[in-house]
Amino acid sequence: HRVDASSLRLYRWYYSRICQWFLGLTIAVVLLLAFVERPSSLSISSDPRHRSPPWEPPCGLTESFEMLCLIIFSLDLAVKSYLIGWEEFRKSKWLIAYTVVISVSIIDWMLSVSMVCDEKLRVRRLLRPFFLLQNSSLMKKTLKCIKRTLPEIASVILLLALHLCLFTMIGMLLFAKTEDPKKNEEWRLHFRDMPSSLTSLLVLLTTANNPDVMIPAYSLNRAYSIFFVAFSVIGTYCLMNLLTAIIYNQFRGYLLMSVQTSIIRRRLGIRAAFHVLTCQGAQQAAEERVRVDAVLLVMSRVQMKSYYRAAITKETRQYADLGYMDREQFSKIFDELDKDRIKEHPPLPQYNSPVLQRLQVVFSHYYLTILGNAVALANVICISTFLVLNSEKSTTKRDNFLMEIINLCFILYYLFEMCVKIFAFGWRGYLSYRNNIFDGFLTILLLILQITIYITYRLPYSHWDPSSHSVMSLWEMIRLVNMLIVFRFLRIIPDIKLMALVASTLLDLVKNLRAFAGILVVVYYVFAVFGIWLFEGAIKPPPEMSVLSNTTMENITSNFSMECGTYEQLAYWPNNFDDFAASIILLYDVMIVNNWQAFMEAYSRYTTDWSKIYFVCWWLTSSVMWVNLFVALILENFIYRWDRSHSCSVTDVERIRYET
Amino acid sequence: HRVDASSLRLYRWYYSRICQWFLGLTIAVVLLLAFVERPSSLSISSDPRHRSPPWEPPCGLTESFEMLCLIIFSLDLAVKSYLIGWEEFRKSKWLIAYTVVISVSIIDWMLSVSMVCDEKLRVRRLLRPFFLLQNSSLMKKTLKCIKRTLPEIASVILLLALHLCLFTMIGMLLFAKTEDPKKNEEWRLHFRDMPSSLTSLLVLLTTANNPDVMIPAYSLNRAYSIFFVAFSVIGTYCLMNLLTAIIYNQFRGYLLMSVQTSIIRRRLGIRAAFHVLTCQGAQQAAEERVRVDAVLLVMSRVQMKSYYRAAITKETRQYADLGYMDREQFSKIFDELDKDRIKEHPPLPQYNSPVLQRLQVVFSHYYLTILGNAVALANVICISTFLVLNSEKSTTKRDNFLMEIINLCFILYYLFEMCVKIFAFGWRGYLSYRNNIFDGFLTILLLILQITIYITYRLPYSHWDPSSHSVMSLWEMIRLVNMLIVFRFLRIIPDIKLMALVASTLLDLVKNLRAFAGILVVVYYVFAVFGIWLFEGAIKPPPEMSVLSNTTMENITSNFSMECGTYEQLAYWPNNFDDFAASIILLYDVMIVNNWQAFMEAYSRYTTDWSKIYFVCWWLTSSVMWVNLFVALILENFIYRWDRSHSCSVTDVERIRYET
Repeated sequence: HRVDASSLRLYRWYYSRICQWFLGLTIAVVLLLAFVERPSSLSISSDPRHRSPPWEPPCGLTESFEMLCLIIFSLDLAVKSYLIGWEEFRKSKWLIAYTVVISVSIIDWMLSVSMVCDEKLRVRRLLRPFFLLQNSSLMKKTLKCIKRTLPEIASVILLLALHLCLFTMIGMLLFAKTEDPKKNEEWRLHFRDMPSSLTSLLVLLTTANNPDVMIPAYSLNRAYSIFFVAFSVIGTYCLMNLLTAIIYNQFRGYLLMSVQTSIIRRRLGIRAAFHVLTCQGAQQAAEERVRVDAVLLVMSRVQMKSYYRAAITKETRQYADLGYMDREQFSKIFDELDKDRIKEHPPLPQYNSPVLQRLQVVFSHYYLTILGNAVALANVICISTFLVLNSEKSTTKRDNFLMEIINLCFILYYLFEMCVKIFAFGWRGYLSYRNNIFDGFLTILLLILQITIYITYRLPYSHWDPSSHSVMSLWEMIRLVNMLIVFRFLRIIPDIKLMALVASTLLDLVKNLRAFAGILVVVYYVFAVFGIWLFEGAIKPPPEMSVLSNTTMENITSNFSMECGTYEQLAYWPNNFDDFAASIILLYDVMIVNNWQAFMEAYSRYTTDWSKIYFVCWWLTSSVMWVNLFVALILENFIYRWDRSHSCSVTDVERIRYET
Repeated sequence: HRVDASSLRLYRWYYSRICQWFLGLTIAVVLLLAFVERPSSLSISSDPRHRSPPWEPPCGLTESFEMLCLIIFSLDLAVKSYLIGWEEFRKSKWLIAYTVVISVSIIDWMLSVSMVCDEKLRVRRLLRPFFLLQNSSLMKKTLKCIKRTLPEIASVILLLALHLCLFTMIGMLLFAKTEDPKKNEEWRLHFRDMPSSLTSLLVLLTTANNPDVMIPAYSLNRAYSIFFVAFSVIGTYCLMNLLTAIIYNQFRGYLLMSVQTSIIRRRLGIRAAFHVLTCQGAQQAAEERVRVDAVLLVMSRVQMKSYYRAAITKETRQYADLGYMDREQFSKIFDELDKDRIKEHPPLPQYNSPVLQRLQVVFSHYYLTILGNAVALANVICISTFLVLNSEKSTTKRDNFLMEIINLCFILYYLFEMCVKIFAFGWRGYLSYRNNIFDGFLTILLLILQITIYITYRLPYSHWDPSSHSVMSLWEMIRLVNMLIVFRFLRIIPDIKLMALVASTLLDLVKNLRAFAGILVVVYYVFAVFGIWLFEGAIKPPPEMSVLSNTTMENITSNFSMECGTYEQLAYWPNNFDDFAASIILLYDVMIVNNWQAFMEAYSRYTTDWSKIYFVCWWLTSSVMWVNLFVALILENFIYRWDRSHSCSVTDVERIRYET
């Protein structure tokens, strides 16, 4: 690492928030290009039966954006490698890979431009997620952790494969073709040959065809169910959950370790800072010590949260009389960083008039919140009653005005509650509660919507034409208002203790999720690009479908006599690989696992049997690996939180015991 | 507790293995009665379309068995309450409940007999699982553990309910009926009214209708998918997995704690034994000590494994010269119990002839096992090749003889391998490996089967009639042989290191699973009995179905124009509540969750909408609670094992370091 003054300034500038934010934006732009590029996702529906031809960007538009991003990445690479120096650069695999990826992308971009955007396969699209991976040290660490777990995962997957193969062979022997055609149903539908039996049991492993696959055999003899139950219990319950256990075991202590690492790094940093400061202050005494004014000078220049800066500066000022502090003292002042910031709410405003003081006491009371919750509940119940009453009515017959007036009353109450709280707590006091911000924002939004409705429709004159107003009909507006009111009902969560704990765990999770979400994005991206490349336009709906789309499903079934449970019968047309957004949703559907065999079967029918491999790979990476990772993360997070709160309370209890 | 001599003898007799085993048998008999009682499960198929009327036991047969069991339980209760005394009895809720259950069962039995077995509802069937619960202290402990977790589980389920309700309302507002009938598909199919939208989203929470529920809306506009994706991600991924985390958190340390408890109990027992023995040995000296011959006498009478008895007796003999041992020494001799039994294989037999010795070295070599595995693999590959070739052929055209001869060769090799191993290791040495027992048993079974085939069909005369032999045709026999060979292939597992670890974890799991399996049995039993009571005979197949059962599925679909995905179209007829075995399988299918909405929908159609409550309750208890418990158990088990093996190796490493 270079440590001369200009390098340090560059270093500081490079790692400043704005610069890193700009780099993140560039990565986001490069990744989002996939939605706009051909095949573009800019159509309302992805259903090939009634989708309009999407807007295609002219050749060169996305390409120029991409080139811009690539130039920024090259700059980033140049700065990074300059900062860490040539020696370190040669050792860092990530930076070398970064170089390779950028150069390959640029070559591919040139090819693409020279072919006037007419190429089939764009390699650089596959490489784009690398930029995301490369930029996050957390994701690199998680990847390393996954890599370490791979041997054990492989052993379970091997066992799973053995389990699958053995049961496939036993299944084929059990359900072989017999002379009695009545007893051949199971053979005909699920165990006709090796690939089909393997697929049947693989899908059964994901439980996606659970009762169906055993019905023909089970209908003949109860005992056949033992085969399927044994398969599911061993495979799905034991082996799959063992995989969860293995992955969790590897990630156990992941959070604790990362916290420890960051603490150790901070200690090291403080030691180094102390050393540097003593060097600057010249070796005048044998014992090492730093000058307080130097520390204060540094503190005023360092980037940190103002709260912590104030706390540390205050601590430092204690030693101002002495003028010097030794190592102990120096490291002690930074203990302030470990202390959680205690959120202090601004004091209540002081009113002079006794009436106002009385009112303030009333309005700042806890019961007001409960009353607010009760009113919100009443409003939600009101809306749901209307929904139940109106569910079968068509738009014109709905009694929108009554609904509207009721909503108005409730919204006025919300406004009253908000004003009263502002009066009691003062502006800053009101906004210092996160709950109130959520509340107030929604109330103001609701108020604006209501005013808009009144301006547009002027209630007193109720002879309005339902379809004349172009932008939004009254019904649409009320719908939006209702949705917001239902959403506002979430404010009750922090007031119920157990739910607040669970919800805060979930919120905490979202913070720690970034690395995992990044890996998910990478995986989705790569598979979606591959899917588009392999299967774009593979499934074409029969042309007569669009004509009959308004008849009921039953008629379609009998007219076309499509087999039940297939892609066509279920009308999965909008789930295809024709553009990026649609393939993301398709991949999500396969990740959820339910009915994924329909996709697999359809694509293997329309293309080749080999396409099954793509779907099985995606199932393994998403549903088996990533979902288990996610479960491990949730377990880790919850237990870390639980232990911390528990041990905290234990030390608190002990401290209290010592004090008395 | 009574401690006089006769009580102690009774105590010992009552807790002897045979007595407890007999009690267990009685419980099993009482539970198994459900399969035989009316409606009896003794029919080959549970499909109402082609099931023969089952054998119904005459009135009084099952009842007399039941009375016998109840009398045994009363005896058990009497002995137990006598042993612990009246004071303790009054405090023990379990024993009081036991009394109540037995008396209610006897009253119900009398009512039933007086009505000549014609009653509809047998309350005592519901109470039977109590006997299982009551008899196992482990299950009681697990139940207590579950009870402790309930508040947190309730908070998550409350959050889940809130999530469901809010999304239902937003969904109903989003997909309300519009004027354009083309855009009403989503409303018509899934969001028609409050109950149907609630059901749609509840099923989506289990992912069982994942792509289907969003297809009509998604086909109109891509953006609607956000609603469903958000619902699934929050509900299924976050909240459901949080439930897993909460349950696991409660069971964390469960195994370690139970091990610690048992160690503490043993310590207490040893202290008590020492005290008793010193009392017996009269207070001749101030310091407490026991006589060695007394200890040896007690040791010879105590029930324990012979291995440990021998080890402890050996330790005790060390002090025989002294004649006495003090407390330290006394507790030290029982440390032998903590040591794992090191399995020693009997020594290799000694042969005199150098040729035989040479052969022994060759045959006891590790490569022979690998060769055996390779041959087994070759055999399995052979069978699968034949399966692939024969899959489309009918029975008569199959080339059974070639298959038969190949199998014969392989089986002869297996026999050779077995003999050679017995020669090399000796009888006892061969049987001391668990692997060899598995191997040898299957080889002998295969040999017997082959000999039977030869006796029946006498290969040289190949003019046999495929259907003349009554018991089993050649094809059936070969099928059985093949299955056994495939099963025998499992012998490779212990030879692959990583797989052996995983498999041994699984086996370990089975041991710790008993308490959980017992709770599962209780839950299944209660729900199955309830289900039979509520829904017996509710679903009747249309009479013409049985005639058409040999036409293909597609024809049926178009003829009856049944909607796809319903109970009728999927031919789920054998899954019903008409007898105990069938309801167990139905409950299992609902537990697996996939397509459970078909059952729920069918039963709410054939009976009332309230039947949904039954299915939702079962889903909550089985899939939500029990499966999460099971996952927690697997996690706990794996991590316990991992930590133990890990810490063991750490101490080993340290010991080695100290020694060098």
